[in-house]
Amino acid sequence: MTVVAALQEALGDIIDVTEESLEAARADRSGHRSAGRPLAVVHARTTADVQRTMRIATETRTPVVVRGAGTGLAGAANAGPGEIVLSTARMDGILEIRRDDLIAVVEPGILNADLNARLAEEDVWWAPDPASRDISTVGGNIATGAGGLLCAKYGVVRDAVLGVDIVLADGRLLHLGHRSVKGVTGLDLTSLVIGSEGTLGVVVGATLKLRRLVRGETCTLTALFPSVRAAAAGSAAVTASGVQPAIMELMDATSLASVHRHLGLPAPLLGASQLTIRTDGPAAAAEAESIAQTLQAAGGEVALTRDAAEGERLLAIRRSMHAAMATLGTTLIEDVSVPRSALPEMFDEITRIEARYGLTIPTVAHAGDGNLHPNFIFEGPEVPERVWAAADDLFRAAIRLGGTLTGEHGIGMLKSRWLAEELGDDQWELQRQIVRVFDPLGILNPGKVFDRA
Amino acid sequence: MTVVAALQEALGDIIDVTEESLEAARADRSGHRSAGRPLAVVHARTTADVQRTMRIATETRTPVVVRGAGTGLAGAANAGPGEIVLSTARMDGILEIRRDDLIAVVEPGILNADLNARLAEEDVWWAPDPASRDISTVGGNIATGAGGLLCAKYGVVRDAVLGVDIVLADGRLLHLGHRSVKGVTGLDLTSLVIGSEGTLGVVVGATLKLRRLVRGETCTLTALFPSVRAAAAGSAAVTASGVQPAIMELMDATSLASVHRHLGLPAPLLGASQLTIRTDGPAAAAEAESIAQTLQAAGGEVALTRDAAEGERLLAIRRSMHAAMATLGTTLIEDVSVPRSALPEMFDEITRIEARYGLTIPTVAHAGDGNLHPNFIFEGPEVPERVWAAADDLFRAAIRLGGTLTGEHGIGMLKSRWLAEELGDDQWELQRQIVRVFDPLGILNPGKVFDRA
Repeated sequence: MTVVAALQEALGDIIDVTEESLEAARADRSGHRSAGRPLAVVHARTTADVQRTMRIATETRTPVVVRGAGTGLAGAANAGPGEIVLSTARMDGILEIRRDDLIAVVEPGILNADLNARLAEEDVWWAPDPASRDISTVGGNIATGAGGLLCAKYGVVRDAVLGVDIVLADGRLLHLGHRSVKGVTGLDLTSLVIGSEGTLGVVVGATLKLRRLVRGETCTLTALFPSVRAAAAGSAAVTASGVQPAIMELMDATSLASVHRHLGLPAPLLGASQLTIRTDGPAAAAEAESIAQTLQAAGGEVALTRDAAEGERLLAIRRSMHAAMATLGTTLIEDVSVPRSALPEMFDEITRIEARYGLTIPTVAHAGDGNLHPNFIFEGPEVPERVWAAADDLFRAAIRLGGTLTGEHGIGMLKSRWLAEELGDDQWELQRQIVRVFDPLGILNPGKVFDRA
Repeated sequence: MTVVAALQEALGDIIDVTEESLEAARADRSGHRSAGRPLAVVHARTTADVQRTMRIATETRTPVVVRGAGTGLAGAANAGPGEIVLSTARMDGILEIRRDDLIAVVEPGILNADLNARLAEEDVWWAPDPASRDISTVGGNIATGAGGLLCAKYGVVRDAVLGVDIVLADGRLLHLGHRSVKGVTGLDLTSLVIGSEGTLGVVVGATLKLRRLVRGETCTLTALFPSVRAAAAGSAAVTASGVQPAIMELMDATSLASVHRHLGLPAPLLGASQLTIRTDGPAAAAEAESIAQTLQAAGGEVALTRDAAEGERLLAIRRSMHAAMATLGTTLIEDVSVPRSALPEMFDEITRIEARYGLTIPTVAHAGDGNLHPNFIFEGPEVPERVWAAADDLFRAAIRLGGTLTGEHGIGMLKSRWLAEELGDDQWELQRQIVRVFDPLGILNPGKVFDRA
């Protein structure tokens, strides 16, 4: 009996072998796609479905690629020939919301934005806010250890998950972590699963740490600077001033001009870079005033609004970056992260790399936390070697500045060749051995993350 | 050549075999002590010292117990016959403080309070504040995944460490984690090391995530309630109101009376339990007013002060708990943690256990995060079987209520027999296999955490 026949016998009509589904599972939002179609997509509805799938995969030694909404940017959920796609997108329930304990228990397939819409009714929220929040699942956010715009003030996924339930490669179900604020019973396997990109097990449930909705007004500022370096210095001055914005985004000149063009707005001044900053909470207005002064002193042309709708409109310019880039060609979105003080130097490095490789690299940055997204634009589906060479240069520059090659998108298949560079051979090997403890046969997402080829 | 001779040859006068040092290394602050004296204490001054020690330990298959200030409460750093004690207490440097990046790089032996005194000069702080902060090391805080009083608002150690440097059992040095706010390159081994209680490697350095000192005034409230259940309900009402105190501590009647007696204060009303609450930040005064109303509505007798010195005096009552207990006999301090809403039920369970085993169990709780410290008091150095039976009942009650058997003290040797109960056999075995990846010979802290005997 073939693997697909075994799956169909065990799981019936949740096994999907339509051309459309198999084709869709080859790619994520990175633009990259696998070498060919996978065997089948399993649309799991329950933990038992996941367990049955993994048992068959183990018995038949068949690789499994776990997939949520397919919005990843590193190819971790791209499935190829001979592989089973295990989709948890239909496991999208909210099992429990506890306002008093500030926790929610959810299934992995729920969209981040759908969860937060429901939580808002209870005056609470789950802080991780990747730019993809409207279309990405909580399970995917956990698998990548997602970040977002609010991280400097409100943390990343790692800070907002108390426990996960995972199905191991052999089909066993484990409950990791806890429901209490504190808990140090044994090793912190919850954190190990966060960001493990489908290599350790299948996340089938999560206990999330919530926050009360932030009270009070929000204020939004924009500040235009004559150069990207000046804008980066402006953001560093804000951080150094001791005021903690909720959001602090930086757009370089090419990004800003592209988005303005895409949205039909008047063209910004040539070379102008922009900071967009939001403050919230009880001190929002005072903090915004203080930031405005800091930015003016740093040479910025500052506008400040306390109007929520106007604030959203200003932030929408930053949020349109991905769409604007897509109009220019195929995009390889990079994701280096550096200590905040190194932002100006990292922009210098990007300028150097643009010149060296004859590329334009529109870049936005979560300036509040030092995470940059340089966008490499090219024609056609394949990343040209020149772009990879430039990306290689970029990664090495980030590591040299005390940074890391991925702040929030993950390694997937696109960055696995640089992983050992950053971790060192000893740590790389140790990490791979840990993966083997969870998955001795190596059937979970082979060829991703720890693939050196 | 004996192990001690090999250490002396390689490391000279940092090898300490004085009776006093060997005797001291048998015990921590749990009151528990090992079966006999260890071989030697290595007072490491450098990472190279640690590496040399571990190489000799590996060559000779000699167990190593890593030790900081010895203030643990679960026996994890207690060393016995045939073991090397590797002390990192003298590696107490601050290598770097970056106000702009909000990070500090430190050696493990620095005391939490000493670090924070130095950081305060730069207008920053490291948030983890175990009650032992004046006498416990940052390395020990990391090894146990320590918590403290401020956790509900400002997080635990896991939330405040970006990277650790560890020496493996075989002497190799690994740099785990990163210096940037975000980073998802590979598995999160930093989190795995936090709370691993000396079983994975020797922490020789840490990159800590700092916060700006909180501006504005602090307000302190006390609220007296006629019963511990009423006080627990009062704290639940505060949490439910959506206001986040910096500190919210609960003392039951026996605790409160003992501390008053110890400090020479007038005796509180019979049966009276107390909440001590602090608010801070720009909304401190408004939050304190709101909390006062909530507590009054819940039947509390409330006092509020905006005077810092008076606030410290009120909080000193809570901070004197450990000293007051020590005057009553030998103490076994337990550390269960439950979801906040389960606090009243957990106190009911403690009352039931007191009656069933004929014990008085003075209990304080970090009510803001659901972490309770029931104190078992007895005569002599050995924990009586009746106390263990009561502790067993307590752990099972906490787990039944969705909690965990240790919120911040760790498993060590005192709770290893309950670890599999909470984790389940499959997860226990998986965790032990992960430990073996780091330490294949099993020479790091054998008999602790994962010992089932």
